[in-house]
Amino acid sequence: MADQGHLIQSYLVIDQGNTLIKVAYFENEGLEWVKTFSSFGVREIEALKLNEYNVKDGIISSVSGNPTQIISLIPNINWLVLDHKTPVPVTNKYKTPETLGKDRLAGVVAASVLFKGQDVLVIDAGTAITYDIITRNKEYLGGSITPGLMIRFKGLHTFTGRLPLYEPDYFNELTGVDTNSSIMSGVMVGTLLEIEGFINAYKQKYPDLITILTGGDAIYFDKILKSNIFALPNLVLNGLKLILQHKLEN
Amino acid sequence: MADQGHLIQSYLVIDQGNTLIKVAYFENEGLEWVKTFSSFGVREIEALKLNEYNVKDGIISSVSGNPTQIISLIPNINWLVLDHKTPVPVTNKYKTPETLGKDRLAGVVAASVLFKGQDVLVIDAGTAITYDIITRNKEYLGGSITPGLMIRFKGLHTFTGRLPLYEPDYFNELTGVDTNSSIMSGVMVGTLLEIEGFINAYKQKYPDLITILTGGDAIYFDKILKSNIFALPNLVLNGLKLILQHKLEN
Repeated sequence: MADQGHLIQSYLVIDQGNTLIKVAYFENEGLEWVKTFSSFGVREIEALKLNEYNVKDGIISSVSGNPTQIISLIPNINWLVLDHKTPVPVTNKYKTPETLGKDRLAGVVAASVLFKGQDVLVIDAGTAITYDIITRNKEYLGGSITPGLMIRFKGLHTFTGRLPLYEPDYFNELTGVDTNSSIMSGVMVGTLLEIEGFINAYKQKYPDLITILTGGDAIYFDKILKSNIFALPNLVLNGLKLILQHKLEN
Repeated sequence: MADQGHLIQSYLVIDQGNTLIKVAYFENEGLEWVKTFSSFGVREIEALKLNEYNVKDGIISSVSGNPTQIISLIPNINWLVLDHKTPVPVTNKYKTPETLGKDRLAGVVAASVLFKGQDVLVIDAGTAITYDIITRNKEYLGGSITPGLMIRFKGLHTFTGRLPLYEPDYFNELTGVDTNSSIMSGVMVGTLLEIEGFINAYKQKYPDLITILTGGDAIYFDKILKSNIFALPNLVLNGLKLILQHKLEN
């Protein structure tokens, strides 16, 4: 049902996280595709076949590094590099916006648009797990940063010097009966209980709270959690696109 | 009210943990003193002035290393070195008793004696946080191992490569408003919510559950937790003494 009378607005969105780089292509409001890379160079750019798309505008958010290299690899796009001075369509109450993770900011921007007029808790389960609260008045208040699943497994292994290293997996037995299941319960069930705990604590303050679960490790929790949860894997990418649109319109 | 007609039974108990060595002296059922060391050698032994006490029997539990060195430093005591073959006054249902942390075992032994005929959850908040359940029938079923506070702080710092390193402290704000308070909320409040979550999950199975909180980091949680919690800092030492007495009596 595309309106052929209008030009299609298309955007490229790059989210450079702690471990992965995600490249997303949007046409108008719709996310057409996402590709995920563990490293990003000339070969990966060629594989994207960007010349098949007429993209003028893009936004790049880099959590871990400097985005100049990626920009130099895709030079014929008008890049917005997200930083703490970029205008956003929410009121940012965070006291140190310059240290706020850009993925956290993009997540709450998307949440405020998707659930307009509602209080939303965004839980992003990645390398770290971030909890961020944005009110129905579009005020972003802040949140929490806790270790993600891999940090918990690696931390137990590295800093005790004697426990084996395990990896995230579906697990919901409360009581472990050997080292493996004790650690799986501690990390997988423990993190689930932490997530449920944060949701319930925010529900005390915001009874109609909406919760969004996103991030690479969300798959381990979205079906187990009893509360009213929306699993939105591409929340941050959508938020980045909204920040780009907000900039272009203002 | 000591019965002068009987000899005083005295015991030395050594608990060699991940980061600290605790030496405890018991007379009959009473813990007379505990001394804690980060390293343990000839000078520390001398400071204990053990020649002032008439100790014949001792037990040593070593989580991280080999206790032979400590034993050689205190040779004139009849040492019981705790291992998975040591008889204990509980039924151990753990499937791999040889990999079970000796502090976990000692904790549930003490719990079963202190709260006889009750279902008890032992939470030991140290380098790792361990959760262990022992039923009213003295059956130890197993539990969970999750990262302790320091592992969570160090893990966030080390494995993200960009977050600062903080340390455990009293903190109970749900919503962090800068990097420091976001991480303090994530680790301190997140761990509290995990602990409450495990307690509540076990209460579903054991409605009359008693919870014991022990370990060096218990001080951050024992006053905040709303459930019926017993804070018992010397639980593991008491458990080790009980295992020694059980061995001497059998």
